Amino acid sequence: MNATYASYNRDPYRTYPMNGWQAQPHHAAMHMKVQTAEPQQPLTFVLIHGSWADASFWDESAAELRKMGHTVYTPEYPGHGKDPNKAVTHGMLSRSIADFIIAHHLQQIVLVGHSFGGSLVQKVAELVPDRLKRLVFFNAFVLNDGEMVADEFQPAAQVFFQQLRESSKDNTIMLPFPFFRETFVNLAGLGFAKHVYSQITPEPAGPFYEKLDLKKFYSLTTPRSYLYFTVDNVMPQYNQMYGWHPHMSSRLGLFRLIYGHGDHFSTAKTEPRMLAQKLYEAGRD
Amino acid sequence: MNATYASYNRDPYRTYPMNGWQAQPHHAAMHMKVQTAEPQQPLTFVLIHGSWADASFWDESAAELRKMGHTVYTPEYPGHGKDPNKAVTHGMLSRSIADFIIAHHLQQIVLVGHSFGGSLVQKVAELVPDRLKRLVFFNAFVLNDGEMVADEFQPAAQVFFQQLRESSKDNTIMLPFPFFRETFVNLAGLGFAKHVYSQITPEPAGPFYEKLDLKKFYSLTTPRSYLYFTVDNVMPQYNQMYGWHPHMSSRLGLFRLIYGHGDHFSTAKTEPRMLAQKLYEAGRD
Amino acid sequence: MNATYASYNRDPYRTYPMNGWQAQPHHAAMHMKVQTAEPQQPLTFVLIHGSWADASFWDESAAELRKMGHTVYTPEYPGHGKDPNKAVTHGMLSRSIADFIIAHHLQQIVLVGHSFGGSLVQKVAELVPDRLKRLVFFNAFVLNDGEMVADEFQPAAQVFFQQLRESSKDNTIMLPFPFFRETFVNLAGLGFAKHVYSQITPEPAGPFYEKLDLKKFYSLTTPRSYLYFTVDNVMPQYNQMYGWHPHMSSRLGLFRLIYGHGDHFSTAKTEPRMLAQKLYEAGRD
Repeated sequence: MNATYASYNRDPYRTYPMNGWQAQPHHAAMHMKVQTAEPQQPLTFVLIHGSWADASFWDESAAELRKMGHTVYTPEYPGHGKDPNKAVTHGMLSRSIADFIIAHHLQQIVLVGHSFGGSLVQKVAELVPDRLKRLVFFNAFVLNDGEMVADEFQPAAQVFFQQLRESSKDNTIMLPFPFFRETFVNLAGLGFAKHVYSQITPEPAGPFYEKLDLKKFYSLTTPRSYLYFTVDNVMPQYNQMYGWHPHMSSRLGLFRLIYGHGDHFSTAKTEPRMLAQKLYEAGRD
Repeated sequence: MNATYASYNRDPYRTYPMNGWQAQPHHAAMHMKVQTAEPQQPLTFVLIHGSWADASFWDESAAELRKMGHTVYTPEYPGHGKDPNKAVTHGMLSRSIADFIIAHHLQQIVLVGHSFGGSLVQKVAELVPDRLKRLVFFNAFVLNDGEMVADEFQPAAQVFFQQLRESSKDNTIMLPFPFFRETFVNLAGLGFAKHVYSQITPEPAGPFYEKLDLKKFYSLTTPRSYLYFTVDNVMPQYNQMYGWHPHMSSRLGLFRLIYGHGDHFSTAKTEPRMLAQKLYEAGRD
Repeated sequence: MNATYASYNRDPYRTYPMNGWQAQPHHAAMHMKVQTAEPQQPLTFVLIHGSWADASFWDESAAELRKMGHTVYTPEYPGHGKDPNKAVTHGMLSRSIADFIIAHHLQQIVLVGHSFGGSLVQKVAELVPDRLKRLVFFNAFVLNDGEMVADEFQPAAQVFFQQLRESSKDNTIMLPFPFFRETFVNLAGLGFAKHVYSQITPEPAGPFYEKLDLKKFYSLTTPRSYLYFTVDNVMPQYNQMYGWHPHMSSRLGLFRLIYGHGDHFSTAKTEPRMLAQKLYEAGRD
C-alpha cells in the first residue's frame, strides 16, 4: 500500500503483505465442499526459544510437527543451554540464528519466536528477509523501533528484574522459584513445575537492556501471525500499556490471530500436539 | 427503570427488559435436579448475514438449527447475493427484512445479526418491535444513535476502506484476499479460505456511510444477547474505543453474554453445529 | 521484598510470598518425564459462598473434590441460608468463618471465596493467617484497603442496587429475575435458571456498604490464585476501572491465574467436576 499507512504504527492496515500469496486459482476451489481437514501444507519451521530456556523447550512440539510432516530446526543461541559464556549481546544472538539459517541453506522459512524470541525474530527477519515465508510470534515480544525488551516490563517488574540482575555476579537474572511457578508454569502440577525449574539457568541480562534499531523490520511485508496462549500471566492481560496481546501483537499491522489455552511455559511441554497444531495454523499460508 | 439510567448509555442497567419474561412458576421447579440437558424450546430464528456475504452464510448453521427443531429464515437483502444493483441504502436493507418478516407473518422472532447485520437488527427492531422475542448480536455492530457503521472503524481502517471504495467504479468495496484471509478466515486452511473468498462479491459501500437514527432502538426493552466468537481479529480486541466486545456489546445495556471459539467468518462454516448450539443458547428465554 | 514494592499497589511484584514453598529437592525431579497426571496433593479446602447464595452453592463441586481425595468445608455465614436475621455486618460474617476454622482445628487451609466471598477471604485471612496455605479468589472481589464492596460497582449499578435496597423493608437486596437470568446464569437453560432463582433469598445489604480496613491483608504473603470463569458478565469485562480480572485480580500482586469456561453462578452447578479440577489447580502448591 502507500505512505498513508506508515503513520499508523500500531494499526492492522499499516503493513500489507503481498508476498507469500499466490494468485488464487479460484476455479479449482469453486465447488469445494466445506472441509476442515485439508491435507497439511509441508512447512519448514525455525523455532526460536525464549529466555530461561534452551533448544529443549521445543523438543516435544518439534517432534509433533515432524510427525505431521514438517521440517523443523531449533537453533540454540549463545548464552543459553551449555554455553558458559553469558556475556552476550542481542546482536550476537540474532546473528547466530541468521548464520544457522544461511549455513543450512534454509528457504521459505516459518520463523517462530517464543517470548524473548520475538525480539530475535524481528532482528533475524532484518538479516535474512528473503528466506522468510512467515513470522510467528508466540506469546512473544514485538518491540517498537528503538525500544529494548526491558521497556515492555511494568515499572515494578523493571525494579524486580534490576534487583535480580544486580544480585548476580555476572550480569544475569535468575528467577526465584515462587515467581517462576506462579507466572511461567501456572497450569502445571508442582512436580512438573519443579522439574522444569530444575533445568533453567540464569539468563544473560544484557540483551534485555539494548535498544534495538527496528526500522528495517517495520518496512518488511512478510506475512505474520500471533499465537496467543490465553492463560499467560507473565505480562498484564487486557492492558492498553503492557502485555502480549493486543498491546504488542497490534504492532504487527495486519496479522493472523490464533488462540490456545495455555500458560507461558508449561503447556508447550504438557500439550505439545496442541501446540504443534496451533503452530501449523499460525504458520500455513 | 427510570430516567436515572438514561444517562448511562453504555451501562448494563440502562435498559431493563421485562417483556419476554413470564411470571415464574417456581413451585414446579423447586425440586428440580441439576440438569443441563433441558429439552430445547422451539424458536423462530431470522438470521441476518453481514457484509461480503449473502444468505448462504447461514446454510450450514441453519440446517443444524432445523435439525434441533427450530424454524429458521435467512432473508437475503438488496445489493447482495445475485442482486446486480449495488446502489442500496441502509434503509432499503432494513425495510426489506421487515417486509420479509411481515409477509411471512412471523412472530416471537429471535432476530440474529452477524457483523454488519447487527446494524440491521437495530433498525429492523425499530420497524417491527412487536414481532420480536429477542435480539442476538453475533460479532456484530451495535451503533450509537446518530452513528454510521464506518464510525466504528479505526482511523487507519477508515482510510483503507475509503481507498478501496474510491478504487471501485460503483461505490463498492472489495476486500483484497490477504486482508480477508488474515482477518475474516484466520482459523481456516488456505484451501477453504480461497473457496470462501471465491464466493464473495464487492460490498455496497453506501450503507457503511449513513448516519442512523437509533433513538427508537434505544427505547426498546426487547431482551438481547451478544454471541462473541473470541478469535475474531476484524476489530481490535480488548480495546476501550473499538471492537465487538465489550466496546459495542456494552451499548446493549443488560444483555446475555455467550462465548465461542471462532473467527469472524469461517467457523460458521466449519463448525455449524457449535454455532447452532451457541445461537440457541443466545436466543432462548 | 523491600519497600520499593509497596508503592505498586496493583503490581504482580508487590507481594512476594515465600511461605508455603519448600526448598526444592531438584535432584529427585531431574530425570522426570513430562507428566501431566501427577497424583493429586490432598488439600483441605474451605469454600466461602457469595451473595444470593448459601453453602449449597458448593454441594456438587465439594462432592467432586471429596471424590478426588480432598477434605472440604463449606461454612455458611450469618444472614444466609435459613438464618432469618438479615441485620449482619461484614465483621460478623468473617468472624463466623474464622470461628468455624478455629473450632474445627483446621490448618494449612486452601481458603476459597466466590464473588462477595472474596472480600470475606481477605478479612478471614487477617483473622487466621497462620492457618492458611493459599487463598483462591473465584470471580471474586479483591478490595483495596479502605474500600467497600459497593465501590466496585459501576455508577449505574450503584444506583440500581441502591434502589433495590431502598425498596426493601429490611435493608436487603433482591435481584429481579431478568437481571439474575442474564448476568448470573447466562449459560444455563431457562428451567435451570428458574430453579436456581427459586432458591435465592434477599441479600443483606449492610456488608456491601462497609469500608474495610485491609492493611493487614496487604501485608500478608500467603500464596494466592485467581480462578477466572471467562463468560461472567456480572462485572464489565476487559475494563481498566471495573471487573474481576484483571482489574481486581491484579491487586493480589504475584498470583497464579487459572481460567475456566463458565458464567458467574450456574456453571458451578452444571459442571462441578470441571470446577473441582480448576479449584485444585488453583489451590495446589
